[in-house]
Amino acid sequence: MQRGEEARVALIDAAMQEASRIGLAAVTLAPVAKRAGWSKGGLLRHFPTRESLQLAVVHRATERFRQHVVLPALSSKSGGPRLRSLFHNWARFATRSDLEGGCPLNAARLEFDDQPGEVRDAVAAAWNELFGYLEKQAAKAIEQREIKTELSPRQVAMLMTGLISACDSAFRLLGDRHAVRDAEQTFERLFPAKSRI
Amino acid sequence: MQRGEEARVALIDAAMQEASRIGLAAVTLAPVAKRAGWSKGGLLRHFPTRESLQLAVVHRATERFRQHVVLPALSSKSGGPRLRSLFHNWARFATRSDLEGGCPLNAARLEFDDQPGEVRDAVAAAWNELFGYLEKQAAKAIEQREIKTELSPRQVAMLMTGLISACDSAFRLLGDRHAVRDAEQTFERLFPAKSRI
Repeated sequence: MQRGEEARVALIDAAMQEASRIGLAAVTLAPVAKRAGWSKGGLLRHFPTRESLQLAVVHRATERFRQHVVLPALSSKSGGPRLRSLFHNWARFATRSDLEGGCPLNAARLEFDDQPGEVRDAVAAAWNELFGYLEKQAAKAIEQREIKTELSPRQVAMLMTGLISACDSAFRLLGDRHAVRDAEQTFERLFPAKSRI
Repeated sequence: MQRGEEARVALIDAAMQEASRIGLAAVTLAPVAKRAGWSKGGLLRHFPTRESLQLAVVHRATERFRQHVVLPALSSKSGGPRLRSLFHNWARFATRSDLEGGCPLNAARLEFDDQPGEVRDAVAAAWNELFGYLEKQAAKAIEQREIKTELSPRQVAMLMTGLISACDSAFRLLGDRHAVRDAEQTFERLFPAKSRI
């Protein structure tokens, strides 16, 4: 059992690396088996279909996001401070180097939007949960007068998501070394901390 | 010659549809040939490698963007009015239905960021050009006092790109019917037209 679980974890690790590099939609079983040093037959015993492996990547990537972005923000007060912490953690997370191509859920939201099926549903559920959480924290921040904005909570959530996405592209695709600084400055200028209002 | 050119156009059309649906990184020759009603051998005469077909998609998608987003904005005065027009056209473009999965360059910027090669270079060049153009128009808009913002021109360009990306995901992945309205309202509230300052 223990060894089976370890094997599973190692296979998902390999699939995460592959998804990060080439996109979750392009992940196929053979290259993942090769990367993990397994035969395709060995991999098939753990993940009988490509979809089952892609789903495991979605869940692992969601956990990774929770661990690096959401959990560290929980020590900040709900509302403005937590929103600020989420954004800060997320900008750092987007440019982490442990996955060479960044979080697979980022490209997956664009790859799977029009591919009905279980993988799409899992990707959409992850994003829906995140949008909902950001929206809730933004609503609190506005209500508690911790941020001053004409935007709706939903619009704040869209803006944060978009800024991170643009930051990720500027950093990874265009090699812009100031991308994180620019994203964080933009957030701070649009939503200054209470003491600066 | 004429027929050869028509065939090429039809094949790129099929590849655009495929790239839009499953992501440019996942496009392979056989399904494109099938979609276009060709044999794989027939396709190989026009596009001898997968990369050559992916490159043709990047160029076609860039042209499509230019036609729907940039050209219609050229009738608006350089600076604030053009920036506003670019954003408006882009938001509509992102949710156009002629390509079922949207513009392939959108996911491609995330898929190819860590896949060195000609396709990545072409995707990066297209995004670099767009970022540069938005930045230039934003700088003019700020200089001409047509928008009032504490952000740098580069940050305005990142914000616009990000808002469109978030709008696209909210619309396509989460089925949010208010996504375009929210993106446009956000832009207008952050960068109100001169008469509203």
